[in-house]
Amino acid sequence: MFPPYEVTVAYKLTMIIQLQSSITPAEKEAICKTIASLGYKTTEVNTQRHTYLVGIGKKEFDIRLLGQMKGITDIHRVSDDYKLVSRKWKVDRTRISLGDEVTIGDGSLSIMAGPCSIENEAQIEQTIAHLVGNGVRIMRGGVFKPRSSPYAFRGLGVEGLKLWYSLARKSGIKIISEVMQVSQIASMVDYVDIFQVGARNTQNFNLLDELGKVDKPVMIKRGISGTLEELLYSAEYVFAAGNEKLMLCERGIRTYERASRNTMDLNAIPILKEKTHLPVIADPSHGIGIREFVEPIALAAVMAGADGVIYETHLNPEEAASDGQQTLDFEESSNLISRMRKTFELRENF
Amino acid sequence: MFPPYEVTVAYKLTMIIQLQSSITPAEKEAICKTIASLGYKTTEVNTQRHTYLVGIGKKEFDIRLLGQMKGITDIHRVSDDYKLVSRKWKVDRTRISLGDEVTIGDGSLSIMAGPCSIENEAQIEQTIAHLVGNGVRIMRGGVFKPRSSPYAFRGLGVEGLKLWYSLARKSGIKIISEVMQVSQIASMVDYVDIFQVGARNTQNFNLLDELGKVDKPVMIKRGISGTLEELLYSAEYVFAAGNEKLMLCERGIRTYERASRNTMDLNAIPILKEKTHLPVIADPSHGIGIREFVEPIALAAVMAGADGVIYETHLNPEEAASDGQQTLDFEESSNLISRMRKTFELRENF
Amino acid sequence: MFPPYEVTVAYKLTMIIQLQSSITPAEKEAICKTIASLGYKTTEVNTQRHTYLVGIGKKEFDIRLLGQMKGITDIHRVSDDYKLVSRKWKVDRTRISLGDEVTIGDGSLSIMAGPCSIENEAQIEQTIAHLVGNGVRIMRGGVFKPRSSPYAFRGLGVEGLKLWYSLARKSGIKIISEVMQVSQIASMVDYVDIFQVGARNTQNFNLLDELGKVDKPVMIKRGISGTLEELLYSAEYVFAAGNEKLMLCERGIRTYERASRNTMDLNAIPILKEKTHLPVIADPSHGIGIREFVEPIALAAVMAGADGVIYETHLNPEEAASDGQQTLDFEESSNLISRMRKTFELRENF
Amino acid sequence: MFPPYEVTVAYKLTMIIQLQSSITPAEKEAICKTIASLGYKTTEVNTQRHTYLVGIGKKEFDIRLLGQMKGITDIHRVSDDYKLVSRKWKVDRTRISLGDEVTIGDGSLSIMAGPCSIENEAQIEQTIAHLVGNGVRIMRGGVFKPRSSPYAFRGLGVEGLKLWYSLARKSGIKIISEVMQVSQIASMVDYVDIFQVGARNTQNFNLLDELGKVDKPVMIKRGISGTLEELLYSAEYVFAAGNEKLMLCERGIRTYERASRNTMDLNAIPILKEKTHLPVIADPSHGIGIREFVEPIALAAVMAGADGVIYETHLNPEEAASDGQQTLDFEESSNLISRMRKTFELRENF
Repeated sequence: MFPPYEVTVAYKLTMIIQLQSSITPAEKEAICKTIASLGYKTTEVNTQRHTYLVGIGKKEFDIRLLGQMKGITDIHRVSDDYKLVSRKWKVDRTRISLGDEVTIGDGSLSIMAGPCSIENEAQIEQTIAHLVGNGVRIMRGGVFKPRSSPYAFRGLGVEGLKLWYSLARKSGIKIISEVMQVSQIASMVDYVDIFQVGARNTQNFNLLDELGKVDKPVMIKRGISGTLEELLYSAEYVFAAGNEKLMLCERGIRTYERASRNTMDLNAIPILKEKTHLPVIADPSHGIGIREFVEPIALAAVMAGADGVIYETHLNPEEAASDGQQTLDFEESSNLISRMRKTFELRENF
Repeated sequence: MFPPYEVTVAYKLTMIIQLQSSITPAEKEAICKTIASLGYKTTEVNTQRHTYLVGIGKKEFDIRLLGQMKGITDIHRVSDDYKLVSRKWKVDRTRISLGDEVTIGDGSLSIMAGPCSIENEAQIEQTIAHLVGNGVRIMRGGVFKPRSSPYAFRGLGVEGLKLWYSLARKSGIKIISEVMQVSQIASMVDYVDIFQVGARNTQNFNLLDELGKVDKPVMIKRGISGTLEELLYSAEYVFAAGNEKLMLCERGIRTYERASRNTMDLNAIPILKEKTHLPVIADPSHGIGIREFVEPIALAAVMAGADGVIYETHLNPEEAASDGQQTLDFEESSNLISRMRKTFELRENF
Repeated sequence: MFPPYEVTVAYKLTMIIQLQSSITPAEKEAICKTIASLGYKTTEVNTQRHTYLVGIGKKEFDIRLLGQMKGITDIHRVSDDYKLVSRKWKVDRTRISLGDEVTIGDGSLSIMAGPCSIENEAQIEQTIAHLVGNGVRIMRGGVFKPRSSPYAFRGLGVEGLKLWYSLARKSGIKIISEVMQVSQIASMVDYVDIFQVGARNTQNFNLLDELGKVDKPVMIKRGISGTLEELLYSAEYVFAAGNEKLMLCERGIRTYERASRNTMDLNAIPILKEKTHLPVIADPSHGIGIREFVEPIALAAVMAGADGVIYETHLNPEEAASDGQQTLDFEESSNLISRMRKTFELRENF
Repeated sequence: MFPPYEVTVAYKLTMIIQLQSSITPAEKEAICKTIASLGYKTTEVNTQRHTYLVGIGKKEFDIRLLGQMKGITDIHRVSDDYKLVSRKWKVDRTRISLGDEVTIGDGSLSIMAGPCSIENEAQIEQTIAHLVGNGVRIMRGGVFKPRSSPYAFRGLGVEGLKLWYSLARKSGIKIISEVMQVSQIASMVDYVDIFQVGARNTQNFNLLDELGKVDKPVMIKRGISGTLEELLYSAEYVFAAGNEKLMLCERGIRTYERASRNTMDLNAIPILKEKTHLPVIADPSHGIGIREFVEPIALAAVMAGADGVIYETHLNPEEAASDGQQTLDFEESSNLISRMRKTFELRENF
């Protein structure tokens, strides 16, 4: 609905031109002139990895006109409204390295687990011990909660995040945590390895723009009733603003069915894998919302092709500050990890 | 919304009393009198397997009052609005034997495959050869199509079904086919092994009632926008009308998302397995509606706990009379069968 | 999704040719040959009013080729998938006369009121007296209820309908009642003035086909999660099967919102009025499902352009056999009738 | 889902105690002690109008215990999860004065009209002339657009708002405009009469919190797939943060139906009027999204009980910078205004 480029006519053609890092100003100017002469409007996109020219126009043209010019690494034509995140121009899948040999999208299964809310030092240490014991490298947890109000549990805030970070770093654990507003980015950026954009913020374009300027990976959750196209547009926003280290997360959608908290849309997984080069993560905890059924949905998501799974676990789910009804205890979590890996291994051997 | 019992007050209690086959009229009368004295209204349900008394009332009572009476095999209390199909009184899962050692719900994975529409003898023979070659025992296919009109392909009708039956029986293949109206039951009953109730007929109560009187298994598909509760009520109708050989089928629901034909609700699988003792089948062909993604959704459904999978395959999907865009060719089908079995084996070994 | 014509290519053109009643076989044959020579496939549609040839093809052609032939009243081109019900070829709105100067779609407001279920003679007489006192000419009521089961209130059946008919005829009251299966048509046809097709039967194509052969008006309710396009297709089925006396009814759709029983889609009213020449009726009782809010939704529907309103009223809603929570008492009903008429008058004077 | 109070047990009781402005610290302390002695947790809410104590607890108590204490204006018990916005404790409807005899919720019909986007001085002047000529006092318009990106029309921003403000003030026109992020509040606050919270921000709790601290009215639009309950919770957030000058806006929800842009849920109007004392506004432009049908839906909304209508109009819709397909021209707008007023007059005379 809101692609980050101006689209005012029915049929548009797009070219994505990746520039060489060694390009000279004169070469770039020559390319821009040629594009303009074709009646195309050009936007320069500078990400932390590359520089692109995104050209949008109406007339067909001979791609060789540009292909022979100096300073160009690659040139593609894309028909999707989302462009930079489309697999049509970038067939190679995006890999996101978090350092310390933790990489998402490299053909391994990325497991991210932890509590809904970070509560205190003991809880952090218990969770880290559980993850380390199971070989899991990424811990999830909220330090700002959307239910925050002057009267309810707000989350531990940045101080909690710093404590978590210091404990996690000792154990080689990476951190994914939700950022809820632009003003939190600066205070979080040094203490998270992945920024999570929640389902209520999928179309918070200011937040997406600002995350485009940050040199940290971002995981965008699908909106509560968001389409896959809107999710891809949201990713396009962040990419076009400069950040290529992106992943998408299916977490269930709102439907008329009330037997589960949300309707986990596992169709989204193969469809997104086809449409975009970005890694696709599944969140079965929110996708079904019922503790005893998190495992079958997590395993199904792996079988459907997910690059990773994020779920909620807690030493004592009944006492969790939030989301206890969909949180696994550590024994259930250990079983799930083992079964997800076996499932993933089977899938990779097909 | 429409349980097949009268429910007129907010809080009702239900007892399900399974009678011994050797019960005497006097014993039965004594039981009924006792139930009536408790202020309960009784409905006698005679299925092809057993006789039950379903009592509905408002007051708590001491179950031992009845438990000591003669002629009773078992007595249960149920709080769900669907009663006879609830797992709360019948923990043992329903097994449905089709003869010739083909059984659904016995802990094996039931695979049902075939074309959307039965087209001609050659197509039937090709499909049977494909199934036999892969060890699949149940063939699906439509002989009456809901798109039927005086101007469109109607399906081959009963004559096509008879031809199919004669070819299938030679090869030990069982038949599942959709029945669309009461008047078709009699002409189909001798030539099908499972009656399928389609998504547009899930709440066709007349059809459900009549299928309750038939001694053939019935598979009920979830309505196009049906809740799981409504699906269970529909099964309750058939059960209460006399037919216990029932299975349920998740085939995707209608949502706002248009990237897929329907939204496959895999949450339904573990939830239904928890709520009912009936087998649960998945239909990934309709659930996602896109040929290249049928496999991952089928495998995901197996991993989520399905007792079986029904999908569309055709020698030449591009030439299929209907649903070609979601139909696998035989090579894709063979691969899928092999992978579903490996997935099922992994699941069963957890 | 299922138009009653075969549609196998992406872009089709349709011509609707209305024939003169005096056409000779030779003239008709000549027309058919000409259509065939254009590569068009022709279907002859005989309704109780007219004979049409519906031609479907791919190539543009000069309409004058046919326009000059003998035996043709009118010829139109239609691009919608629903054709005979489209306003694109028939701009004049359909009027449906029930006799005794009761006409639907003639620019008056048609009010249809009565109980959910016909219960007994006293109830029928009370309701008739209420309607007559308010100048309302059409009474609604169910004699077969979809919740019917051996154990629940089934409705009074055909005997109840006959009783109702004899009482209604004495007072000049017309009858609309739901038909739920093909086998009921014959027994109902002499005692109803309008057959109602319920929301669970909107895509029961067998029922629609049979109603196409009957010389009584039919009101088709939108499916529980039916699109407007599907509703128009359903009407096309009945029309193509021979019955032009059709009206459509918006009765609310299933959404995620639970504050009301359904989500009344009043957008449907102006949209349907634009797309089809058939009268459009609103059912606020089911559309919101809460007694105290039936009035504002009924008035809103009139303001949105409805040709009529159907709603539930009962002498004593608390004691109604069904749907009491959305049923008006007679005082509320009288107020509503008066206000709907004033609203309609205002609208007509714009 | 996220009420702005901590709710941790199933059944809670709430008391809302409105304090006298003349209350002494000692009196307040005594009240708080009494509440605490009942096991209730108290939150003090200071709005720009009043001070409230919101007490939440589990045990029943005798309200007279508190009613006799000094410093209390009024005391109520509320069972809804949304409390301060509930009509259960405040039956008097909220009136919001914008000055210059423009009041919303006072029993008049509030009309708010103008373009989707503020474009330039000429457009502002044309629109103001149109509104003044029709006696409309409130002008809508966007200066920040959610589609904003470095490459698309962003809106004129604060400079455009200042220009608009200076022109509007000369003509006695009030301004409603959307605020999209916390950082915009300060720069907008002196130039708007009503802050609009858009459908993508309904659950942007940070934004809601900050708007609670501002002394300007706020109109909250229902979320794209938001429930009425969530809309009321969002209002509760703003109210609890200090701002009582609130109104709600129904603007259509996302459903499976594609014949209209959204599904206008007019059920929401009488339901919200029953549940809350806040004014309820309808937005037919977004609710149906098709220019020619805006009028019938606007009139229907008035008939359903709306306190006001907000819609899009432009001198030349075809040239509007955004939303032209749902924007009325001035002639259509003048007609609509006249008809809405007649409809409103009829409704008020019932």
